[in-house]
Amino acid sequence: MKTGAEYLESLRDGRVVYCGGERIDDLTTHPATAGYARVIAEYYDLHHDPRLRDELTFVDEDGERRALHWMIPRDKQDVQRRRRYHEFWWRHFAGGMFCRPPASTNCVLFGVVDDPQPWEDNSVGHGGRPLAQHIRDLWARVRAEDSFLTPMFVDVQYDRSRPDSVAESPALEIVDRTEEGIVVHGWKSVGTPPVFGNEVVFGVFWRPGTTEEQTVYGVIPANTPGLVHVARPSTAAEGASTFDRPFAGIGDELDSMAFFDHVLVPWDRVLHVGNPDHAKHFPQRQFDWIHVETQIRQTVNAELLAGLALLVTEALGTAAAPVVASQLADLVRFRETCHALTLAAEETGFHTEHGMYKPNPLYVNFGRAHYLEKASAMIDLLLELCGRGVVLFPTEAELADPYLGPRLEEALRGRDIGARERLRIFKVIHERFLTEWGTRHTMFEKFNGTPLHVIKMLTMQRADYRPDGPLARLARDVVAGRDPALPTAEAAEGTEAAGAPGAPGAVERAA
Amino acid sequence: MKTGAEYLESLRDGRVVYCGGERIDDLTTHPATAGYARVIAEYYDLHHDPRLRDELTFVDEDGERRALHWMIPRDKQDVQRRRRYHEFWWRHFAGGMFCRPPASTNCVLFGVVDDPQPWEDNSVGHGGRPLAQHIRDLWARVRAEDSFLTPMFVDVQYDRSRPDSVAESPALEIVDRTEEGIVVHGWKSVGTPPVFGNEVVFGVFWRPGTTEEQTVYGVIPANTPGLVHVARPSTAAEGASTFDRPFAGIGDELDSMAFFDHVLVPWDRVLHVGNPDHAKHFPQRQFDWIHVETQIRQTVNAELLAGLALLVTEALGTAAAPVVASQLADLVRFRETCHALTLAAEETGFHTEHGMYKPNPLYVNFGRAHYLEKASAMIDLLLELCGRGVVLFPTEAELADPYLGPRLEEALRGRDIGARERLRIFKVIHERFLTEWGTRHTMFEKFNGTPLHVIKMLTMQRADYRPDGPLARLARDVVAGRDPALPTAEAAEGTEAAGAPGAPGAVERAA
Amino acid sequence: MKTGAEYLESLRDGRVVYCGGERIDDLTTHPATAGYARVIAEYYDLHHDPRLRDELTFVDEDGERRALHWMIPRDKQDVQRRRRYHEFWWRHFAGGMFCRPPASTNCVLFGVVDDPQPWEDNSVGHGGRPLAQHIRDLWARVRAEDSFLTPMFVDVQYDRSRPDSVAESPALEIVDRTEEGIVVHGWKSVGTPPVFGNEVVFGVFWRPGTTEEQTVYGVIPANTPGLVHVARPSTAAEGASTFDRPFAGIGDELDSMAFFDHVLVPWDRVLHVGNPDHAKHFPQRQFDWIHVETQIRQTVNAELLAGLALLVTEALGTAAAPVVASQLADLVRFRETCHALTLAAEETGFHTEHGMYKPNPLYVNFGRAHYLEKASAMIDLLLELCGRGVVLFPTEAELADPYLGPRLEEALRGRDIGARERLRIFKVIHERFLTEWGTRHTMFEKFNGTPLHVIKMLTMQRADYRPDGPLARLARDVVAGRDPALPTAEAAEGTEAAGAPGAPGAVERAA
Amino acid sequence: MKTGAEYLESLRDGRVVYCGGERIDDLTTHPATAGYARVIAEYYDLHHDPRLRDELTFVDEDGERRALHWMIPRDKQDVQRRRRYHEFWWRHFAGGMFCRPPASTNCVLFGVVDDPQPWEDNSVGHGGRPLAQHIRDLWARVRAEDSFLTPMFVDVQYDRSRPDSVAESPALEIVDRTEEGIVVHGWKSVGTPPVFGNEVVFGVFWRPGTTEEQTVYGVIPANTPGLVHVARPSTAAEGASTFDRPFAGIGDELDSMAFFDHVLVPWDRVLHVGNPDHAKHFPQRQFDWIHVETQIRQTVNAELLAGLALLVTEALGTAAAPVVASQLADLVRFRETCHALTLAAEETGFHTEHGMYKPNPLYVNFGRAHYLEKASAMIDLLLELCGRGVVLFPTEAELADPYLGPRLEEALRGRDIGARERLRIFKVIHERFLTEWGTRHTMFEKFNGTPLHVIKMLTMQRADYRPDGPLARLARDVVAGRDPALPTAEAAEGTEAAGAPGAPGAVERAA
Repeated sequence: MKTGAEYLESLRDGRVVYCGGERIDDLTTHPATAGYARVIAEYYDLHHDPRLRDELTFVDEDGERRALHWMIPRDKQDVQRRRRYHEFWWRHFAGGMFCRPPASTNCVLFGVVDDPQPWEDNSVGHGGRPLAQHIRDLWARVRAEDSFLTPMFVDVQYDRSRPDSVAESPALEIVDRTEEGIVVHGWKSVGTPPVFGNEVVFGVFWRPGTTEEQTVYGVIPANTPGLVHVARPSTAAEGASTFDRPFAGIGDELDSMAFFDHVLVPWDRVLHVGNPDHAKHFPQRQFDWIHVETQIRQTVNAELLAGLALLVTEALGTAAAPVVASQLADLVRFRETCHALTLAAEETGFHTEHGMYKPNPLYVNFGRAHYLEKASAMIDLLLELCGRGVVLFPTEAELADPYLGPRLEEALRGRDIGARERLRIFKVIHERFLTEWGTRHTMFEKFNGTPLHVIKMLTMQRADYRPDGPLARLARDVVAGRDPALPTAEAAEGTEAAGAPGAPGAVERAA
Repeated sequence: MKTGAEYLESLRDGRVVYCGGERIDDLTTHPATAGYARVIAEYYDLHHDPRLRDELTFVDEDGERRALHWMIPRDKQDVQRRRRYHEFWWRHFAGGMFCRPPASTNCVLFGVVDDPQPWEDNSVGHGGRPLAQHIRDLWARVRAEDSFLTPMFVDVQYDRSRPDSVAESPALEIVDRTEEGIVVHGWKSVGTPPVFGNEVVFGVFWRPGTTEEQTVYGVIPANTPGLVHVARPSTAAEGASTFDRPFAGIGDELDSMAFFDHVLVPWDRVLHVGNPDHAKHFPQRQFDWIHVETQIRQTVNAELLAGLALLVTEALGTAAAPVVASQLADLVRFRETCHALTLAAEETGFHTEHGMYKPNPLYVNFGRAHYLEKASAMIDLLLELCGRGVVLFPTEAELADPYLGPRLEEALRGRDIGARERLRIFKVIHERFLTEWGTRHTMFEKFNGTPLHVIKMLTMQRADYRPDGPLARLARDVVAGRDPALPTAEAAEGTEAAGAPGAPGAVERAA
Repeated sequence: MKTGAEYLESLRDGRVVYCGGERIDDLTTHPATAGYARVIAEYYDLHHDPRLRDELTFVDEDGERRALHWMIPRDKQDVQRRRRYHEFWWRHFAGGMFCRPPASTNCVLFGVVDDPQPWEDNSVGHGGRPLAQHIRDLWARVRAEDSFLTPMFVDVQYDRSRPDSVAESPALEIVDRTEEGIVVHGWKSVGTPPVFGNEVVFGVFWRPGTTEEQTVYGVIPANTPGLVHVARPSTAAEGASTFDRPFAGIGDELDSMAFFDHVLVPWDRVLHVGNPDHAKHFPQRQFDWIHVETQIRQTVNAELLAGLALLVTEALGTAAAPVVASQLADLVRFRETCHALTLAAEETGFHTEHGMYKPNPLYVNFGRAHYLEKASAMIDLLLELCGRGVVLFPTEAELADPYLGPRLEEALRGRDIGARERLRIFKVIHERFLTEWGTRHTMFEKFNGTPLHVIKMLTMQRADYRPDGPLARLARDVVAGRDPALPTAEAAEGTEAAGAPGAPGAVERAA
Repeated sequence: MKTGAEYLESLRDGRVVYCGGERIDDLTTHPATAGYARVIAEYYDLHHDPRLRDELTFVDEDGERRALHWMIPRDKQDVQRRRRYHEFWWRHFAGGMFCRPPASTNCVLFGVVDDPQPWEDNSVGHGGRPLAQHIRDLWARVRAEDSFLTPMFVDVQYDRSRPDSVAESPALEIVDRTEEGIVVHGWKSVGTPPVFGNEVVFGVFWRPGTTEEQTVYGVIPANTPGLVHVARPSTAAEGASTFDRPFAGIGDELDSMAFFDHVLVPWDRVLHVGNPDHAKHFPQRQFDWIHVETQIRQTVNAELLAGLALLVTEALGTAAAPVVASQLADLVRFRETCHALTLAAEETGFHTEHGMYKPNPLYVNFGRAHYLEKASAMIDLLLELCGRGVVLFPTEAELADPYLGPRLEEALRGRDIGARERLRIFKVIHERFLTEWGTRHTMFEKFNGTPLHVIKMLTMQRADYRPDGPLARLARDVVAGRDPALPTAEAAEGTEAAGAPGAPGAVERAA
């Protein structure tokens, strides 16, 4: 398992990173990036903490102790263990303020490793090279090196009104095939945080119009020649008072674009090449595992939201007012409903053909949909409960002023709570939801998985939810005047006999 | 186990029932009530069906086979078995069109039987009689007789603006205590369906202002002298075409008020007497079990709603339109989220001190809250997907008309579906949501458990959700700058070390 | 002006009406229809009431006094006068319980009469007949006869997934053209209430796929040979106690389908024929005027909803509870916002080329959209405020029972209100929103104008709301760094100089 | 009329201002404040622009030309002129990015000046001094000096759970009364932007528990000895690229607290003193006029939101997708409904006893309520339409880079739009809604007028909306079986005969 120091060293590899218009030489010392580099170094170090051994590590099939971010779950207990691992990190990161440590991203290869053969079989133009074996070897290597993998799949927003605009866009595409590998050129437009990762896992999300040349999946080091990372400006407030900037003072996890300037991807780093039909189906499953942790993180976000609302209304003395109590109940219910969807996904999970145990993606998706549908209103509610307290507050410097300080302390204290403690609540809420640091986090949760509308559209493509599928069976029986309680009702009429919706069988069939 | 014939016979016991302004002599033959009497008779008979033995019956601790409505769950498997039992009935009843068969009501005594001692110990004015033993004997008797128990707890709506109005109201109260028992007089204002039950389980929901004399709990036969049932008018359409009236043609489960005209409740039928403080705490738990089945029924309701929406949009050819698909996804998600909350309640259930296994009432309540919050909008959505099809449709008579029939069949057929089959979908939706029969059902679901607002208020009284409770621990740590992932964070500071929210421990402590 | 007696006589004209599977011989005496016939007779008679002369009648350009339903508005004052006329009727009809008296339907010809020439000019296959002059003559005649016009435009729901299904449907279409007129055959699928009208104004709503033969507009008597009216079953409760059935006891305005069995439409009754392009644009304007009164009626509906909520919470003593007060405020605001949109439509109205003054259709549409978006939630809120009071209540017969009556009166009285008066509130709410009579009314409001989704789609086709239109001008200036307050900002750059959104100019341009 | 230069000079008056922990010597040059000082200087200068004379100035009753921010409206035309004046400024300020120029704040004295007598008559402890005449003289003076008045009324958030906590709080209160005036001491906790104003108009919002000593209203110069302004940290980005920071580059309107350290308020600057009952009623009306402009500004905000949504979806090519079109329609409708409520307030305005013409405060309030209820969801919708474009974008520096620039321009161009122009849209949206500068603006709109919940509570205290008031008359008639269309219906029964809701009469009576 990598140490923090090794991780920091790995960042000094000559990678090309632009941030806020400036080229960054050393990520570990530049104020825009040093904070987050420290955060990930601490992440690696905590895996070595003997007190946390059971929580953060496991022993793999070869008897090697590894960080849990490498454990492929084989049963419900494994999935629950992964959940506790993720909960550990999202709590450690103050309710999920950072979203993409290795615990979140390394699983991007789980689906590929579980079933690599189709990635080879469906490839076009790979000259019969054994891509499936390459995938297995690659997995062994990144696991052995305890790499930080970072996915980049999203293409540029160009003109959504024309499918043929996809082909015209400057998206990453194959420009040459050689004996050494594939040469790719063009943009991938969003990733978090390839700037801080060890290897970029790139690929394409199929859209109508995606070409064969745009269809390429691979894994390359972050410092590959020709690879240029262009990050958004950093909102890190390196060196700031943690009273005034409770989160930005810690760091900023950078989102970035990447330009691939005639980048060579060696054949043993190619996962798949050349088949849009493959791109249409298989890679979706790559993200199922990221969605699982996303849904858990969102639940922890929801827990923080609800908790802050409890604290702030206690501090203001408003918690018992009926309208406020009703709003608090909505915030609590938000967290609990998200959590229930996690539990339901675990409870109705299933084994893949190759023995992975997967939480039911339907409930994972509905969990994310529930969060996305309500998060913005819940944040709004929390801010409403704060009143002006999140707009107008003094800084640490003013509290330290001999004239102003004592007067402000008197003005800003609350019910059974001192001014500084109360200000701390407001400042956490302000930083988290009202600064550029905070809104970036909110926007990340809004867009990173899948937008709500897309989740809904994908839902209605599931076999489970077709008019002749299991969910509508009750309605079909009622309309037809059959007794839907009797298992034979529809079967007797020879139409359908599938399990109830939400049952493992139903899911596996649809996946 | 009772048979249907025995049940029907038990209704001919001289009980006093008014319905729609008329005194009903024989419930089993009067058109206002005959349908529902048949429905419950069939309910009893199905328990004798050998094919359904495992699904509907169990063998009790004395080796006696009984209907599952008598099984007190001892572990998670029992709870899941009960869930399947309830799902059976709500499907059998066409998605829960009837809400109060014995499967729903008999569990009103589970909480009392599990822990009868406080009911005796807290009583005032019972002359030291062994009420706890009476409770155990009563339970043995009603179980042996396979009785249909029906609860009546709700008091008259009088003047909610004054707590002292509670004492002034004509609610049921003790007017005399004798050697034989307690004489009670006054109204209980809602029950479903005591008219069709064998025994009335009455009691009081504590409100500020509830008096000692109003605090009385007991179980009496439906035909007790002095007990007058006043039902709302029946919406049953006895003898109607099931094409034209798919549900009202089956029957109507009557809600009713009851006037207790100096009714004697013998001491061995008294559960508790005289202590408003007892009324404040213990009887709440009586309804926890009813809430469990209610939440399951609402989930089955939601499944019917979603299924009907799938069928109707298929029949109209609108299902693939993006806005419609998005609406369908909301309906599907409604069902699945309700179901996830059932699963979460089971998964995080706990044992009571006396060994019952209870689904986590928090998730049961949030499940009901989710349903209540959205059901009306979901029904509205379904109706919107129907368009005029649920307003304007011909009757069976017109379809049979030699001139009109063929022309209507041509006008009303749809995509891959004949006119009659399509009309059947519309008629089911119409009857279920747009007739007096149907809106009564909707209103029952809206009010029977607890209104949404009350669920919210009760939520915020849970210890789990206090500012110093487990849910806010993450927020407390984040505000204080502690690492919330480390179990020692708060504990080290000596404040709190409870389990995560949603964990069994948290629940038991709070209950 | 017609009298009530004359109106009743006009219904006895041999028209062919089916209702609930039965052929109705005399609408004025059959229990399914007699009530509503009386309602419309009273409507006509009230125009003769000298006390209401100024409110209900006007003197036309020929010095003739006529019912206001014939007044084509020429300025804002006329429009306000029409609003008061409509408000009179919707109040008279207990908050709009009937929706389609002549005040609502006769204006279907306003747009045609204001500008008849395009209806002729765009026609195809009319053999050069002077359709525009026919339209003027027709208008003179129906006005002189004080006819009750009833529109029928909607076609059968067949298969919305295929545009070519429109041509295959059994919708009304031309099957022959003769010297006398056009022979049409097929279905029109919804109208309210042609069964009770004097003349049917039929036409087609263009959809992609509408054929030339389906494109025909005309006006024919309700008893035209070959015309068959098929109404839904009546919900009228002729002869019922108005205590028990406050609305259904009055009557039921029937919706109906119509089969045209080789019906001859004489040329002087043809408005337009043969041009789907005409159908695409002009007839939309026919409904602008109906939408105006619909929006006013919906506002009166909203006023009734809010008023009932005030009464019921007063009667229960709950009005001052903060959560209830907040819900009441939402109901009040619902009414006031609907009303504000009426006022805005009048204030920003405009003159057509031919001198009619039209309320701004944008605000009329947004008024309807606001109502449609919220009506269902508002009704749900009202029902929530009622609690069980709308589910369980005794009938007049029980109140008259010597034993039950006094006991029920004691049980059901409220804060400063007797039991009967309180029951009356509940019964009005029950009948209006929870019976088949009431839900039909709700569904009518939901679908009759245009569903919300369609209003939204039509909104985005307005020139006012294009990215280069007036509403986005502020955004364009801000993005470009120009001062949007200066009128010359965009003009100086030669792009656009249109009026502010909501100004008459903007509207006329877009219409 | 003041010039910009005179305004800037007036800020150099020795006032005590803290901002971000630093004492600011010269507001006109310090980077935290220089930008906004320039903004207000330009505001004054524009009033001298001859092209804008009619739009921005008027001639008062003495023949003096003055800025329109001093015009007290006497009829509907005046109110409409004021609306256009406000629209001018909110457009000039890029859709209302600054909220408190003199056009917004000076009207805080309108209500006092219209009717000063009660302010004197209700005073306690003013020694019979002629406060009403002082008010008139004060008005004449501030108008002659073209002062920038800034209100400060809000008190510290202390402990809302105990009314007696109000008296214990360190809020501003009278500590001495002398011949020269009143000595006050303590905090006022929010104002925008007293730091930049000429005179502070202070007072108290009555709450249960407000004491006599806390009840004091006055007007003092911003540099009064003892007055200490404590502003929040500035978010101004003085000197930043307007491409990268389109709004923060212009300036930041500071919110501030104020500590009154034994401040002497001369008697001729006291508006009222000592009577909590006066504080309960009269000062509410002071804010009616600010609410009018607030509601107009919110409508312009809504227009910007809708316009930006049109531009961004055009640029992405998503505008025509049905789900997106439906969302755009919601944004358009949001603006139009806000605007309709402005028009309705003007249309149903009324004259005060002293001849001011006031827009109907009910509709003004409902306009604000509509905005507050939906603004957050509408912003969320806009952000959803943007996708990642508002999270990840390059800076001006990167676009200027010779290697990155051309490649980024290719990657970020859109449908018919270049990369820079498209980025500008995203940057405007980002700065406005996702930076600390932008969220402060959103929070200002959320809290400055009155929170939604308070507006709702105040609504239900209006006589118009009582169960026996005009809005419920229709419901009363319907329930009683009277014809509500006949004016005599209720009057005949001697209960009530008030005008319809929304009529001027109804409003005046209730005010």
